[in-house]
Amino acid sequence: MEIDYSNIKVIGFDADDTLWVNETYFRDAELEFSKLMAPYETANTIDQELFKRQIENLPLYGYGIKGFILSMVEIALELSNNSISNKTIDAILNIGKDMLSKPVDLLEGVEEVLITLSQDYRLIVVTKGDLLDQERKLEKSKITHYFHHIEVVSDKQEANYSKLLNHLDIKPSEFLMIGNSLKSDILPLINIKANAIHVPFHTTWMHEHVVATEKDNKKYKTITSLLEVLPLLNKNQKTRV
Amino acid sequence: MEIDYSNIKVIGFDADDTLWVNETYFRDAELEFSKLMAPYETANTIDQELFKRQIENLPLYGYGIKGFILSMVEIALELSNNSISNKTIDAILNIGKDMLSKPVDLLEGVEEVLITLSQDYRLIVVTKGDLLDQERKLEKSKITHYFHHIEVVSDKQEANYSKLLNHLDIKPSEFLMIGNSLKSDILPLINIKANAIHVPFHTTWMHEHVVATEKDNKKYKTITSLLEVLPLLNKNQKTRV
Repeated sequence: MEIDYSNIKVIGFDADDTLWVNETYFRDAELEFSKLMAPYETANTIDQELFKRQIENLPLYGYGIKGFILSMVEIALELSNNSISNKTIDAILNIGKDMLSKPVDLLEGVEEVLITLSQDYRLIVVTKGDLLDQERKLEKSKITHYFHHIEVVSDKQEANYSKLLNHLDIKPSEFLMIGNSLKSDILPLINIKANAIHVPFHTTWMHEHVVATEKDNKKYKTITSLLEVLPLLNKNQKTRV
Repeated sequence: MEIDYSNIKVIGFDADDTLWVNETYFRDAELEFSKLMAPYETANTIDQELFKRQIENLPLYGYGIKGFILSMVEIALELSNNSISNKTIDAILNIGKDMLSKPVDLLEGVEEVLITLSQDYRLIVVTKGDLLDQERKLEKSKITHYFHHIEVVSDKQEANYSKLLNHLDIKPSEFLMIGNSLKSDILPLINIKANAIHVPFHTTWMHEHVVATEKDNKKYKTITSLLEVLPLLNKNQKTRV
């Protein structure tokens, strides 16, 4: 089923790894953590254990950097069998503080896409994670003025999107979500009969991976660069005139 | 200047220590931390240093329990001169996890006030802090259905409130905020010409204290129990009929 672009009134953008680089910083942090923990375990086990702990802690800590740091400290205590040095713990805390101070690197084409689309659509940001950290990145990004609304949600499930559309007072068919995560930005939208365009980022967190059967549903479009949305949504503007 | 209750259309409630107990859990946690750190410093110094570090970390970590735990770990490393045991660090992490799993204790009169006021006003929650943690408490509180809107903000300054009123499409004079913190729930509202009722909680975090000159501005009302809002806002309903 093709997307009927002529219906679209509001376009939602995911933020992390759709508008700017994010996952790369987490991967760098994991690598650094892995080096700190090298005396105790193989890099592979460290990665696996940290990932498992993050998922276990999600209901309590939610998404974002602070929960990630807390999970790293826990794993450091455990994998070292309570023999990790205070200096290493301090280094872990600093990995987190560095992450929270990273510059915001806009991805290719972001500004061009926002300039163009903001002329004909209401644009919003729908992002999950830590409220303050997302606000910090938005501010640093200098692109906030293109958006009518910024929605930071604790999770991106169908119910979160339904509530948002209700709040925006639009029908699902009038909403298009653009993002890099099939699990968070695409499939929930398809399930509530809204529209979605998938722009994969080169790195995806394991937790955001979906199995093949879930992906079979081909009611969304996949593009390789954000810039490819322009002909799709511009063409539509011409036919509407 | 008296509040003109006949103008009020929307009532905003602060959540922590206005609808339910919160600060008490932080104080208990500080006491526990103080005991863990007793071999290294006096309780007073531990309290002071932890408070100072929380304020220093606010721009990075924001409000909420996760930032509080991270600050405790930092202070534990420092005050022990990097000689704190892994077990103590584990105990600190568990203080945080316990806090995130606390039951939600509604304060006196909350449900009665919400039942009554929701019949004549649009009620909203305006709370700062961690998005997921506030959502968890709202869900546990079983009072979400009284509210038209829940707004979790990263801070409660004038700009945050102005944006909110804009979003709600109401004038400042039509908004009444009820909360326990002069600094966060009362003074910013007075400054933007909205209305506010102060319901002090028996314990206030030092960061929320305001100096006397700021308090001199008496354009808000102070009550000792939330139930006292009912005659104020009910009387008005009668005169409006």
